[in-house]
Amino acid sequence: MFVLGIDGGGTKTIGVLCDHHGRVYSRAVVGPTNPNSLGYDRVETEIQKLLDSIREQTPDCFAKVTSFFAGMSGGDREEDKRRMSGLFQQYLPKGCQVQVDHDAVNALYSGTLGKPGVVHISGTGSITFGIRAQNIRTRVGGWGFLLGDPGSGYSIGHRAVKAIFDEFDGIGEKTILTSFILNHFHLGHVPGLIPIIYDMKKAREILASLSRFVFLAAEQGDHVAKQILYKAGQEMAMSIRALILKLHQDEPNHETIPVVLAGGIFHKADWFVPVIEEILQFDHLQTKLILPELPPVAGSVIAALQQAGVNITDSFIHSFKQEAS
Amino acid sequence: MFVLGIDGGGTKTIGVLCDHHGRVYSRAVVGPTNPNSLGYDRVETEIQKLLDSIREQTPDCFAKVTSFFAGMSGGDREEDKRRMSGLFQQYLPKGCQVQVDHDAVNALYSGTLGKPGVVHISGTGSITFGIRAQNIRTRVGGWGFLLGDPGSGYSIGHRAVKAIFDEFDGIGEKTILTSFILNHFHLGHVPGLIPIIYDMKKAREILASLSRFVFLAAEQGDHVAKQILYKAGQEMAMSIRALILKLHQDEPNHETIPVVLAGGIFHKADWFVPVIEEILQFDHLQTKLILPELPPVAGSVIAALQQAGVNITDSFIHSFKQEAS
Repeated sequence: MFVLGIDGGGTKTIGVLCDHHGRVYSRAVVGPTNPNSLGYDRVETEIQKLLDSIREQTPDCFAKVTSFFAGMSGGDREEDKRRMSGLFQQYLPKGCQVQVDHDAVNALYSGTLGKPGVVHISGTGSITFGIRAQNIRTRVGGWGFLLGDPGSGYSIGHRAVKAIFDEFDGIGEKTILTSFILNHFHLGHVPGLIPIIYDMKKAREILASLSRFVFLAAEQGDHVAKQILYKAGQEMAMSIRALILKLHQDEPNHETIPVVLAGGIFHKADWFVPVIEEILQFDHLQTKLILPELPPVAGSVIAALQQAGVNITDSFIHSFKQEAS
Repeated sequence: MFVLGIDGGGTKTIGVLCDHHGRVYSRAVVGPTNPNSLGYDRVETEIQKLLDSIREQTPDCFAKVTSFFAGMSGGDREEDKRRMSGLFQQYLPKGCQVQVDHDAVNALYSGTLGKPGVVHISGTGSITFGIRAQNIRTRVGGWGFLLGDPGSGYSIGHRAVKAIFDEFDGIGEKTILTSFILNHFHLGHVPGLIPIIYDMKKAREILASLSRFVFLAAEQGDHVAKQILYKAGQEMAMSIRALILKLHQDEPNHETIPVVLAGGIFHKADWFVPVIEEILQFDHLQTKLILPELPPVAGSVIAALQQAGVNITDSFIHSFKQEAS
C-alpha cells in the first residue's frame, strides 16, 4: 500500500510517497504553502506543482495512494483544514483518505512515531504543542516574533543585537558578537545595523539568521553568547513546562511524556538539552526528551499510515532514514 | 529682542516666537518634521507652513527675530544639522543666527533652563541623552522599538500584550489588562489581537498607545500592570545610570547632576520617580530629578536666548508658563 505525506512550511513544502515498510518511492520540494501569509491561490499553485511532480516520478504508485496526510504551517483552524482538504482532494486519486492538520502534529510524530506527546519547535519562530489521549490538544506560544517566540532563532538573534547595542551604550558586557556581526554586514560601527534591522519586511528572517553567530561565539567561550543560549534553553523549558501543566492539569500522575525537540535550532541541541532537563526535573515532570532521527515529513507519512491502520515499526524508521538521506 | 524656538518631532512640530521676558507673541503647530522618516521635501513644506503662520500672526516681531533654535527629532548628524539650518535660513529674516540640534537638547533645557545635565525622554520611544561642560555629549538607547526603547510607551504597551498572551497560554498571572485591551478593540478572544499587532506600519504606535491601559490597571491595583510600570522605572534608571557613568567616567566626583524626565509617559511620573530615585541612590550617584514645568519648545526658546547672550530668570519661566497655558 502507498501513502503520501506532506510537510508544508513557511519557507518550503516537502512531499514524500512511501509504502508501509518506509520505502520512499518519490519525493518533491516546492515553495511555501502557508495560506495565512500567501493566500489560497498561490498555495494551490505550489500544491499542484508538488503533486504533479510526485505523480510524474511514479505514476503507478501515485494512482494507488489510499491515505494522505498534510501537516500545514498555519493549518490551525477547522475552516482552513476543510478548505485545504478540498484543495488536495482535487489532485489526489479518487477515494484517497485525506487529512490536513497543523504542522506541529507531524513534527511531534517524527519523534514519537505517531504517539501522543509534546513537541517544542524552534526554527525562525517557535511553538510548543501537545496531544494527549482522545486527541485532546493544546498549544503555548507561537504568537510570532513581536511577542517573543521563546527559544526561537529570532529570539536568539534579537538578543544578540540587543547585546551589541548594550555594549555600545556602555550598559552591557563586552562580546565578540559585535565584531562577528559587524564583519558579516561589512559595517564599521554599531549604529550602522539600524537600517538593516528596521527593514521591516525582512526583520524577522534577518534577526533569526544571526543566531548562527551566537552559536559560533558561544563555542569560542563568549560569555554573553553563552548567556543568550542559556536563556533560550530556559525559555524552551518554561514553554514545555507550561504546556504540560495545561495539557495534563486534571491528570497530575500522568505517564512519562515524550517531549520532541524539533526545528533547525536543535542542530545545536547540546546547548539546550541539559538546561531543559534541569528545569523539567526541578518540577518533577516525568518527561523524556527526544531529538527526532527522522525529518518532519516522516511524521506526515506516519500519520497517513496510522490513518490506514498500519503500525509503525523500527524497520520503518531504518528504511525511511536510509532512503531519505 | 525677539527669538524663535522650534520643537520638531515625529508626530508634530511646534514653533514659538518669544521675547527675553518669556512673553509669547505667536505660536504655530504643524505636522512631523523628521527628515529620516519623511524626506526633506515634506519637511520643507511643513517648515514653510510653520514659519509662514508665525510671520502672518506677528509680522513686525518676526522681522526682528535675531536668534533661532530648532531641536529636531532625527537631527543627530552634523550633515543633517547643516542641511536643516540652510532650510530654515531661507525663511528667516536676514542676519538671524540659526542653530539646529537634536530635540533631546531642548527637552533637557526645558528642565535645566539651559544648563548642562541629563535628560531621559519617554514617549512612544525613549532616549537618554546628556551634556556636560565644554559641550561634551553622549547618549544611551533610542535605537527604536525593535531594540526595546527602555521605559518607553512602546515597551510598556508591549509588555502588556505579552502579559495577556502569557495569561492566555497559562504561563502568566491573571490580569485585568486582558479585559481592558480586548474591550478596547471589541474582541472576544486573545488571538484576535494578532492581526492588530502585526499591522507592521502601525505596530509601534498601536503598542505604545496601549500603555494607558497599564496605568489604568495599575491604579486599580492590578499586580501585573504594577510590575510592568516598576520594570519601566527600573529600565529608565538603568539607562540614566549608564549615561552618567559614560558621560562622567573621568570625573567620578562630579557635582549634582540635574536629570530631566521628559515626554508623555511622565504625565504619570509618580509610578517611576521613586523607583528611579532608589536605584540612582543605591549607586551613590549625585543627581536631582526634575519634572519640567515648561514644554520642550520652551527649551528651544531658552537655547535661542542663550545664543543671543540672555540669562534665563525665574520671571521668564513664570511668564512663559502663563502665556503658553
